[in-house]
Amino acid sequence: MSFLTSAQPTRHEIEVEVRYAETDQMGVVHHSNYLVWFELARTALCRLTGVPYHEIEQRGSWLMVTGARLSYRGGARYGDTVRVACWLAVLKSRTLEFAYEVRAEGSLLATGTTEHVWVDAASRRPRRIPEELREPFERLAGRSSA
Amino acid sequence: MSFLTSAQPTRHEIEVEVRYAETDQMGVVHHSNYLVWFELARTALCRLTGVPYHEIEQRGSWLMVTGARLSYRGGARYGDTVRVACWLAVLKSRTLEFAYEVRAEGSLLATGTTEHVWVDAASRRPRRIPEELREPFERLAGRSSA
Amino acid sequence: MSFLTSAQPTRHEIEVEVRYAETDQMGVVHHSNYLVWFELARTALCRLTGVPYHEIEQRGSWLMVTGARLSYRGGARYGDTVRVACWLAVLKSRTLEFAYEVRAEGSLLATGTTEHVWVDAASRRPRRIPEELREPFERLAGRSSA
Amino acid sequence: MSFLTSAQPTRHEIEVEVRYAETDQMGVVHHSNYLVWFELARTALCRLTGVPYHEIEQRGSWLMVTGARLSYRGGARYGDTVRVACWLAVLKSRTLEFAYEVRAEGSLLATGTTEHVWVDAASRRPRRIPEELREPFERLAGRSSA
Repeated sequence: MSFLTSAQPTRHEIEVEVRYAETDQMGVVHHSNYLVWFELARTALCRLTGVPYHEIEQRGSWLMVTGARLSYRGGARYGDTVRVACWLAVLKSRTLEFAYEVRAEGSLLATGTTEHVWVDAASRRPRRIPEELREPFERLAGRSSA
Repeated sequence: MSFLTSAQPTRHEIEVEVRYAETDQMGVVHHSNYLVWFELARTALCRLTGVPYHEIEQRGSWLMVTGARLSYRGGARYGDTVRVACWLAVLKSRTLEFAYEVRAEGSLLATGTTEHVWVDAASRRPRRIPEELREPFERLAGRSSA
Repeated sequence: MSFLTSAQPTRHEIEVEVRYAETDQMGVVHHSNYLVWFELARTALCRLTGVPYHEIEQRGSWLMVTGARLSYRGGARYGDTVRVACWLAVLKSRTLEFAYEVRAEGSLLATGTTEHVWVDAASRRPRRIPEELREPFERLAGRSSA
Repeated sequence: MSFLTSAQPTRHEIEVEVRYAETDQMGVVHHSNYLVWFELARTALCRLTGVPYHEIEQRGSWLMVTGARLSYRGGARYGDTVRVACWLAVLKSRTLEFAYEVRAEGSLLATGTTEHVWVDAASRRPRRIPEELREPFERLAGRSSA
């Protein structure tokens, strides 16, 4: 017998040192950089599958970004080291959604999500998740078969 | 007698030439740059009020970004000149929402919104819209008193 | 009879509106962005040859950057529209050097140069200037045969 | 008796994980990002003085960039972790020059220098090195009194 057990997705955190170039004249990090930090955290989370994202690309697939939402609650400053948490919030056969939280010294600065679709790099057309990544991504999402 | 007439918000478009530095190894513009393009279009729209945004800041107020949503439908490429349309979708006494559309050669590449709150630059606390900007922003939003 | 006439290289200027995201917490444009502006001006200069740079790439050649020098004399500010001048300062069969000047309201903010080598995109190896570009680039450099 | 002993400047290395957003359509890191990496390495080197750069700014001084030179020998790729070495190559009472080397897996990708001047943040005018930083920076430069 095989069934899905309910479980939590893997939550992975990275540290990012704020770059001077990321600040703007308000004295805080420009809001566009949070999408770049999300990507760093997503890269680190995907690495846990054993297949780093640059290898996924070399094998011919892209996880193209189709949407993003961001909510800003406070500003990161030069001199801060922020922590960016990422987890796989939604996993379907053709699409995914990652969720994010950005904190500095315990205080929540931003939350967000990004939506993605698997794309075949050669044809640039949507595709299902590559077969060898199905199980690793299901584990990331907190699903397991027994 | 004074009343509000229902009208459309002012829709303003700018042209942005894609920069080589904005592309990534997928061969299209990295998704974080759309927030920067949104900001360019927002700056141009606000300029229509007669008070450019850098003057609003010099007078002591910020339009801080509190949220953003982006939906990507196609990739902009180096060599493209994209058109970014912006309008004031929601106007309240303390918050605003701008909406955006990005097109290249007629094809819709992305849509999005950004949410903002008025902030007093000195105290870094939320405030109402500066009195001298109330009418110009209401006109942008398509409201007028008669 | 054929000889080279001495002449000035074509100097081409573009206007760039300073982006909020380009400023840093000093209140001026972060120094790394000048390399991006140089590239915009170089793109516009190369377009004068009749072959836009993205077409040069599509035909299989890259003008890879091998060096850069920048000298900063003043800061560009949000609200400024800067003028970036570019010309082809040195043209050899395998390498080029472009020179740049950045001004805001007549005042010189920065000067610089970038060095480049022609590269075959497929092999990623240095090559001579593509034959069809030799004359257009010589005209840019101010040389002409009679 | 007091004299200067000749010694080597402190060489400090940091690791930087290449960001997807830093790549361009050539498949390597866009050349402008090396100035941002240099700044990260400079920040880390200055931290060795015991006064992090954001504190230097809070005390009212800026180390403004007045010049930069870069030489590119190879391209960094997404998936690479590069090592950026930085040292204080020239130290005068009013100006400094830092030098840099960027490597990936032992291979030299780029070298460069940046020139700086001390600026009083309030007046935005050049100044001498803040007195409390004179000795720490001389130690960084490899000078010591005995």
